[in-house]
Amino acid sequence: MSGKTVAIAGATGAVGACFLELLDKRNFPIKELKLLASKRSVGKKLPFKGEKLVVEELTKDSFKGVDIALFSAGGSLSKQFRNDVVNAGAVMVDNSSAFRMEEGTPLVVPEINPEDIKTHKGVIANPNCSTIICLVPVFPLHKVNPIKRLVVSTYQAASGAGARAMEELEVQSKDVLEGKPAKKEMFPHQIAFNVFSHNSKIDSDGYNEEETKMIKETKKIFHKPDIQVTATCIRIPVMRAHSEAITIEFEKPFSPDEARKILERAPGIRVVDDREANYFPMPLEASSKEEILVGRIRKDLSNEGGLNLFVAGDQLWKGAALNAIQIAELL
Amino acid sequence: MSGKTVAIAGATGAVGACFLELLDKRNFPIKELKLLASKRSVGKKLPFKGEKLVVEELTKDSFKGVDIALFSAGGSLSKQFRNDVVNAGAVMVDNSSAFRMEEGTPLVVPEINPEDIKTHKGVIANPNCSTIICLVPVFPLHKVNPIKRLVVSTYQAASGAGARAMEELEVQSKDVLEGKPAKKEMFPHQIAFNVFSHNSKIDSDGYNEEETKMIKETKKIFHKPDIQVTATCIRIPVMRAHSEAITIEFEKPFSPDEARKILERAPGIRVVDDREANYFPMPLEASSKEEILVGRIRKDLSNEGGLNLFVAGDQLWKGAALNAIQIAELL
Repeated sequence: MSGKTVAIAGATGAVGACFLELLDKRNFPIKELKLLASKRSVGKKLPFKGEKLVVEELTKDSFKGVDIALFSAGGSLSKQFRNDVVNAGAVMVDNSSAFRMEEGTPLVVPEINPEDIKTHKGVIANPNCSTIICLVPVFPLHKVNPIKRLVVSTYQAASGAGARAMEELEVQSKDVLEGKPAKKEMFPHQIAFNVFSHNSKIDSDGYNEEETKMIKETKKIFHKPDIQVTATCIRIPVMRAHSEAITIEFEKPFSPDEARKILERAPGIRVVDDREANYFPMPLEASSKEEILVGRIRKDLSNEGGLNLFVAGDQLWKGAALNAIQIAELL
Repeated sequence: MSGKTVAIAGATGAVGACFLELLDKRNFPIKELKLLASKRSVGKKLPFKGEKLVVEELTKDSFKGVDIALFSAGGSLSKQFRNDVVNAGAVMVDNSSAFRMEEGTPLVVPEINPEDIKTHKGVIANPNCSTIICLVPVFPLHKVNPIKRLVVSTYQAASGAGARAMEELEVQSKDVLEGKPAKKEMFPHQIAFNVFSHNSKIDSDGYNEEETKMIKETKKIFHKPDIQVTATCIRIPVMRAHSEAITIEFEKPFSPDEARKILERAPGIRVVDDREANYFPMPLEASSKEEILVGRIRKDLSNEGGLNLFVAGDQLWKGAALNAIQIAELL
């Protein structure tokens, strides 16, 4: 496989740093790597494979000769530069929500619907982090016994709101421990020693955008518009891995033992389910891991034949940068 | 109402401190207050209404002349002293799980089943904290439109494991922020900047004791053995209030507006449900409050006619000491 010219738009952000780390770790075949960011980051140097790469300004001329443009710079910049990327002959793998629900744009989790990338017209969308972390462990079960309904509660890390939000959790925690008031900049509510409903816009049904993404994206990724999903998305004082409690209803009864066997063989996940030792998925252990941890595989005692799971996955890796790089690898 | 002689067994614990605080705050009519604890706390002085009360040793002779014995000293001590309390003519209000599921022993949440205390034979059990915090906001809806099924995910504070566990969260957080390893004593896993499945024994179905309590106690308190409940109980790095995401299925469809109106009039809760401002129940705001906060009142989009709620309540107060004192007030 010959090397590709790869551009990273949003190279200085939390996901940008993970792009650099994972392109190296996974030995992605790179001919040239271009780091792009806003004007104020120009000249900044970032480490890659022992070298220091200089950040350039993201402009409409940035994509000449680029094969793959990994975007994680927010939805409005993805929209602004889409045509420049596509006209330059590059493929945009976009981590924002800008094109996820767009008709004709593939929304891809490589463990689930890799074949969908074939239909791309220059843009492939990377799903929402909570969606990916839910669906990777749930899909192998769905393949065997179709899912009718998902009830999900999330325990979401600060990283989903970016590097500065992670810093806010750290600074607030220190301040609160010293008896000082918590300074709020990135989050509307105190994140240290507190939880709050996901800080995104609420629609007329009372769902925030994160929950709506989980509902809509699941239908699109599974190609199953009738799958029923409800979600409660909650921020908690954890740095960079999301956890989720998932209750699943299937078309036919599913035994926990059968599910465990299927999950143990499935790609992209690791079963952590030691009842004796009370040892199950934890965000601390899911951090900086490629696999999503899945455990607490047990009957839903409120619904004959249903199952409960608890999962944890790195929001910055599989929830964002890793999934996008896996898409790039498919290309 | 003439004053009562009240004994507190476990006066030096986290719940014990709340008993003292709330007996004062609620102006409970007290003739005499006896503080009881293990030998090593004897002589310790605790403040009550401007005085300093001396802790005595908890022995079988502690209950002479006592009207009400508030127990929060662990299940084995509740069992050990039950007969001594009852034989002395006192009523035990027990915060442990020792007698909750015992046939003939009332398990009481004053907002739900106050009439059950009439049948007591010397012992009234206080439900599990997660059960109380779930059921107080859910019961007013159940009265109007019976609940068939509850799916609950908890976000539980350190306080549920006692004062030393709260200290562990504080010390670990400081250590982790300084780059030091987290010392684990009370919890089996790191609690600072992490979450883990509730640290109680797991049964053959894969449910931990906290989850099993929620399932069994709900049936008993509601006098409805066929109500279906599943729960995922998770510890999070929060000090003293539990939060819960609750998905409810009713016998008939329930509209969120109707539910909101009912909840706004119901006792023991406060509706916090401002969609515009993204302002909903948070454990920080539920701490040291008598009411359970309830919000995110919305349709379950995965189940026609169902509802989702998010609630937060003080684990030490309504989840423990306050509920027990309300039971004592009924006496």
